[in-house]
Amino acid sequence: MDSSVVLGIDIGGTNTVYGFISRDGHIYTHEEIPTRGQEPVSDLVDRIETRTHQFLKNNSELDLFGVGIGAPNGNHFTGMIADPPNLSWGNVDIVKLFKERFDCETSLTNDANAAALGEKYFGVAKDMNDFIVITLGTGLGSGIFSGGRLLYGHDGFAGEMGHMPIEDEGRNCNCGNKGCLESYASASGIRKTIEGLIEELPDNEFLNTIYRDKIDGLMIDAAFDNGNEIAKKIYEITGNRLGQGLAQAATLLSPEAFIFYGGFSNAGDRILNFAKESMDRHLINGHAGNIDLIRSGLPQGQAGILGAASLIWSSQ
Amino acid sequence: MDSSVVLGIDIGGTNTVYGFISRDGHIYTHEEIPTRGQEPVSDLVDRIETRTHQFLKNNSELDLFGVGIGAPNGNHFTGMIADPPNLSWGNVDIVKLFKERFDCETSLTNDANAAALGEKYFGVAKDMNDFIVITLGTGLGSGIFSGGRLLYGHDGFAGEMGHMPIEDEGRNCNCGNKGCLESYASASGIRKTIEGLIEELPDNEFLNTIYRDKIDGLMIDAAFDNGNEIAKKIYEITGNRLGQGLAQAATLLSPEAFIFYGGFSNAGDRILNFAKESMDRHLINGHAGNIDLIRSGLPQGQAGILGAASLIWSSQ
Repeated sequence: MDSSVVLGIDIGGTNTVYGFISRDGHIYTHEEIPTRGQEPVSDLVDRIETRTHQFLKNNSELDLFGVGIGAPNGNHFTGMIADPPNLSWGNVDIVKLFKERFDCETSLTNDANAAALGEKYFGVAKDMNDFIVITLGTGLGSGIFSGGRLLYGHDGFAGEMGHMPIEDEGRNCNCGNKGCLESYASASGIRKTIEGLIEELPDNEFLNTIYRDKIDGLMIDAAFDNGNEIAKKIYEITGNRLGQGLAQAATLLSPEAFIFYGGFSNAGDRILNFAKESMDRHLINGHAGNIDLIRSGLPQGQAGILGAASLIWSSQ
Repeated sequence: MDSSVVLGIDIGGTNTVYGFISRDGHIYTHEEIPTRGQEPVSDLVDRIETRTHQFLKNNSELDLFGVGIGAPNGNHFTGMIADPPNLSWGNVDIVKLFKERFDCETSLTNDANAAALGEKYFGVAKDMNDFIVITLGTGLGSGIFSGGRLLYGHDGFAGEMGHMPIEDEGRNCNCGNKGCLESYASASGIRKTIEGLIEELPDNEFLNTIYRDKIDGLMIDAAFDNGNEIAKKIYEITGNRLGQGLAQAATLLSPEAFIFYGGFSNAGDRILNFAKESMDRHLINGHAGNIDLIRSGLPQGQAGILGAASLIWSSQ
């Protein structure tokens, strides 16, 4: 039996998940801990190191083979996390930090690329060579497989689909540009859509109920299912714009499928049906009707560490 | 000395170029012949076969190692040319046809992919692993290298950048869709731009002079160089839209450079300066200023056969 395990780490702005994963995707154990982004990064590394030694002591038949890390703004080529959002770390050479502690193969990529690797090695994309994983949350991230390989671009920054400009002089995006896909098709995009509708319909009860600090997606889902026209409008606008972005990516890359992962993707077919219709409308004949929109089958909270571990296993 | 040559064929709607090319890109001879797209495809194959036997007889020290073919709508995976524009061939298994004649490795791709292979193996992209070649003519084609490999997508149809939708409900494109990049940034796009300007300025002398069956690009270039404001406006609109499309592709793929090939690219910096400015304006910080726009250095009329031959040499 193969006794090797990889430490897979999924670093997020609030919480970090780590776990120990075998070559065939078995998770021995995993845990979510607070990232504590206001402390020095060594604080997080210390805590994971302590827990890893404990795990290896309790499971003496296992060997630590490598460390795979997924993080926002993680760059595969440099091993650096560049000024991650919500974390006060500045630029961190996270690969070097973990390598110093464990002296084994250590590799980093961004969270969306990790999700794509997770789908390829352990998820719905096992039999696909050309697919794009889209992570939907506050923002929109993407990881691209083409010809059986993850695309990094010349500097590791490929796959920034959330910042693909889909509308000239469109909505203001958090990145400083205008009209980025993320400013329409993400949790923050849905907030902007709701704000636009409130301007048109300032007294609408439903709009004023859902417009809070944190938009409650489940409440919009329920209203949609009950035939609420405003809820339908919100998801129609979101899906139409998402479909426009999918069409742009598909025209360039001709993938077999788009795979959706992340909290906001729970709205599922309520948004994806609009997106599929819009995507096909924007595609040329050869592509239209030919590309599936699929939801990830990986369990929330585990896809990140499975993907991070795949960074190591896939390089074997 | 390596005595192998590849027959490189660049099939176009009006003319076809073929030539015999060594592994290091030496062209022994090449010739342009009429495609005669209203005759059966076997007519073209017959003529190339006859000339190839003649060449090999005259150069008995050389061996035919393979046949590489670039053609509009050529599909690398199926070996088929699918209903090519301006040719009455329907769907043609061109790889099979040539294989029957010469019994050696035979491979097909579309003309833009062939141009990209030509740049990688014999042109300005020799030292690049991530770049996108854009062929500018009546339409706009593209071939994408990422991580050192040409991208085909799951069905061979990747790289249809000309039909990437850049404007929702934009201009009518020849493909039947609206707002495709090609309907702005190509010879036919420039014609549409001129038509739009004529609607605004029906009596403008310069516009009425250049608006003919075939728009004379060199005349617009000359007027641009003389400070003509209308010529400037035409290239500004074209470059702005082109830059928007480049930004979309660059956000997904993070290439080192875009390389421009084809007749219309002779306008060169007159258009590309606008395109660069527009691209950078549409890109997020990490990408902006980081991507070069370069013109192909391969000689017109030879790039196609060099690229087609690279299909064979690159698979060795």
